[in-house]
Amino acid sequence: MKVEFWFEFASTYSYPAAMRIETLAAKQGVQLVWRPFLLGPIFQQQGWTDSPFNLYPVKGRYMWRDMERICAGMDIPLRKPTAFPRNGLLAARIACAHSEEAWAPSFVRAVYRANFTEDAEISDPAVIERCLTTLGLDATAILAAAQTPAAKDKLKAQTAEAMTRGIFGAPSFVVGDELFWGNDRLEDALAWAAR
Amino acid sequence: MKVEFWFEFASTYSYPAAMRIETLAAKQGVQLVWRPFLLGPIFQQQGWTDSPFNLYPVKGRYMWRDMERICAGMDIPLRKPTAFPRNGLLAARIACAHSEEAWAPSFVRAVYRANFTEDAEISDPAVIERCLTTLGLDATAILAAAQTPAAKDKLKAQTAEAMTRGIFGAPSFVVGDELFWGNDRLEDALAWAAR
Repeated sequence: MKVEFWFEFASTYSYPAAMRIETLAAKQGVQLVWRPFLLGPIFQQQGWTDSPFNLYPVKGRYMWRDMERICAGMDIPLRKPTAFPRNGLLAARIACAHSEEAWAPSFVRAVYRANFTEDAEISDPAVIERCLTTLGLDATAILAAAQTPAAKDKLKAQTAEAMTRGIFGAPSFVVGDELFWGNDRLEDALAWAAR
Repeated sequence: MKVEFWFEFASTYSYPAAMRIETLAAKQGVQLVWRPFLLGPIFQQQGWTDSPFNLYPVKGRYMWRDMERICAGMDIPLRKPTAFPRNGLLAARIACAHSEEAWAPSFVRAVYRANFTEDAEISDPAVIERCLTTLGLDATAILAAAQTPAAKDKLKAQTAEAMTRGIFGAPSFVVGDELFWGNDRLEDALAWAAR
């Protein structure tokens, strides 16, 4: 069985999930499918025009402290971004268009590091360009391809698919018809796939 | 260190937490404080007049499936209540007034079983009476005491304290100033207390 990893670049809890999922899936012998999508349209359907962590500040305060504990426990850095949530549209288009390339997981992690450890503005093409060039990729060509209707439509379709499959937050993990929501459900999803 | 267990009788995820917390805390040598409170006034502050699982049906569908998996994994029964959320006011007043009695944990578990395995209407005094008499308690006296201003005020004060301590959902676990939210954070909270 395979696990689909549905993630959004603005999503805080997707960051620790993205940093650990490849190693954990490999350990379990579970195939991994990287599925970037946008939470914005899904939140809008629920009547939210901002992150629920901003709309409900008490929950937001908890989330940042929880993230500190989680990242400390994983021994990965965390720097609270000065802007939250950041617009991950460009990065998501690239990750979606190239999700089956060998470099995709490294690119995803580079974008998360930019957002959550470097406090870099990931909606800025220069930041994404840096993420790509660091991996030895042709950033100019990839950025240009991300602006084509094909790339835009692919991400739109993937976000629409997220909705039809009952996804309402990120990260989410899907194994067949089973949905698991949240970084803390990653182990459960992998165990389900490995049954 | 001790762990405060903040729970609400209407809360689905509080059910598996209530069923396992005493055993787990004892194993870790952590002292346990039972802290019933009402989520209603807290949700109202966030602008919600119903459970978020009803307000956001996609999330609600996920929660019930997630609960099925959790209860199956713990080998405890789950029957989806025909009414949700049920009003746990009376049960919470009793649990709050008697939280330090030796029978309190058993009463709490009896109420959760009534709600989530027997589909019983826990706002009905007859159901709560049954929970008490099964434990060999003087149900008449306890039910009468629950209607006194002292009992009402105690639960009100506890709910107000939940708010001031940043609690926004149930179950929550508090260790000193550290807040952990959700049944899936119980192990983390106990580990924090046992450090």
